[in-house]
Amino acid sequence: MATQGPARIHCSERLEVIAVPGVPLVERGDDLAALFRAALDGAGIALRDGDVLVITSKVLSRAEGRFVDLPRVAVSPRAEEIGRAIGKDPRIVELILGESTQVSRQAPGVLVVRHRLGFVAANAGIDCSNAVPAFAPPGSGPWALLLPAAPDASAAALRQALEDASGARLGVVISDSFSRPFRLGTVGAAIGISGLPPLWDRRGERDLFGRTLEMTITALGDQVAAAADLVAGQAAEGRPLVLVRGLAFPPSDELSGALCRREEEDLYA
Amino acid sequence: MATQGPARIHCSERLEVIAVPGVPLVERGDDLAALFRAALDGAGIALRDGDVLVITSKVLSRAEGRFVDLPRVAVSPRAEEIGRAIGKDPRIVELILGESTQVSRQAPGVLVVRHRLGFVAANAGIDCSNAVPAFAPPGSGPWALLLPAAPDASAAALRQALEDASGARLGVVISDSFSRPFRLGTVGAAIGISGLPPLWDRRGERDLFGRTLEMTITALGDQVAAAADLVAGQAAEGRPLVLVRGLAFPPSDELSGALCRREEEDLYA
Repeated sequence: MATQGPARIHCSERLEVIAVPGVPLVERGDDLAALFRAALDGAGIALRDGDVLVITSKVLSRAEGRFVDLPRVAVSPRAEEIGRAIGKDPRIVELILGESTQVSRQAPGVLVVRHRLGFVAANAGIDCSNAVPAFAPPGSGPWALLLPAAPDASAAALRQALEDASGARLGVVISDSFSRPFRLGTVGAAIGISGLPPLWDRRGERDLFGRTLEMTITALGDQVAAAADLVAGQAAEGRPLVLVRGLAFPPSDELSGALCRREEEDLYA
Repeated sequence: MATQGPARIHCSERLEVIAVPGVPLVERGDDLAALFRAALDGAGIALRDGDVLVITSKVLSRAEGRFVDLPRVAVSPRAEEIGRAIGKDPRIVELILGESTQVSRQAPGVLVVRHRLGFVAANAGIDCSNAVPAFAPPGSGPWALLLPAAPDASAAALRQALEDASGARLGVVISDSFSRPFRLGTVGAAIGISGLPPLWDRRGERDLFGRTLEMTITALGDQVAAAADLVAGQAAEGRPLVLVRGLAFPPSDELSGALCRREEEDLYA
């Protein structure tokens, strides 16, 4: 794919951020595009050019069957050792190490890693809530859920299916909730993207006095994920699909990796 | 003020994010509440209970007159030395040091500091775009603009004035664009807050399987700031006031410091 660099975009003036009701609990093998189309239809929402659909990573992981039955995890000596050092279930530590290329920090209960997908995340984004599959035999578990295998590719496939069905030009973001250095509370971040430029380059714009703007490449993908997180259900309400309507953006084939700072350029790596 | 801890909130299903047109270029001494009321009136927007107004820090800084004429900055030996080391105007370095309590990292062109307001920010949030005041004499400058003196207090005063005028219960967020470790592009963050809980505690909620949710304190203030940044003008369009409508939140008297991780609890301090 062509590398485009951050997109130049005109700023939108009004957005709607809508949690789409009616997506059922997703299980391994489900056709997400079909479930989302049905939910949108049921809500009376016809997709339009420029609509962005934000999908929580959890629902994609569930569709992909990224469940792990913890008692079946073979624990390596390294995971055993780290688990002891930080007071964390060594089976979870084993999964985290398996999903990552490098440990960034370790502390009681937390292992911050560079994920195989390129971003830095606490515990490799592995979650133990909403992690039980329908096929779980009685007495199995506890279960963990890994992040999706290839969220950019999944975003592209979902976009294709939803564009084919609607005729509209769309963006798709796969979002996850990230902890951060310096600041408390999680925020939505884009771990997969298709059609929407991950970065928005405002450097070429001039400020009110004609001086060129500094430091103004906006993390468009992450901000869209954060906006969607304000209405996405994390708990029992289960609302994994959010429509962000009203953004103005040009076509893009950039991937979510555009949002990841390279290690050698990171003051906190 | 009472310490409430993260708020328990029911999740909203639909938000509108609206850049309010008609706010003029703000100058030192301007009455922001009056300017905002006029802009809202002009746009036909009547504030409602639960509306959140997000205001870029820049417009507050301008109203407060936080302009600095760089040729008038007295540069200390330390600022001189750091400026030489990182290749940055020593007058800007002097301002950054004056606004901060500690240097976190330094690298070519950038000084990451713990700001006197408690958060960690590149270059202490000092900006040189849109930084020229109306009172600038010919031949003065270049000018820099410091962050507002006390954004929580300013948020509270603005909220009071807008609540008095509208009769609606409001939230106010003062936002700035932050760079981040690990990820590229800036995102909106709340550096001042009033009425809106900075953190949203979802830990008490149960997931779809009755297991209590993990790691789910959401940075509500920051996510609202990020959503608003999607429509706020940074450049010539100048749209410093954004209305976020549709959030459900309880009253809160917590300040923006609730979003700042304490240094001793930060793996990347």
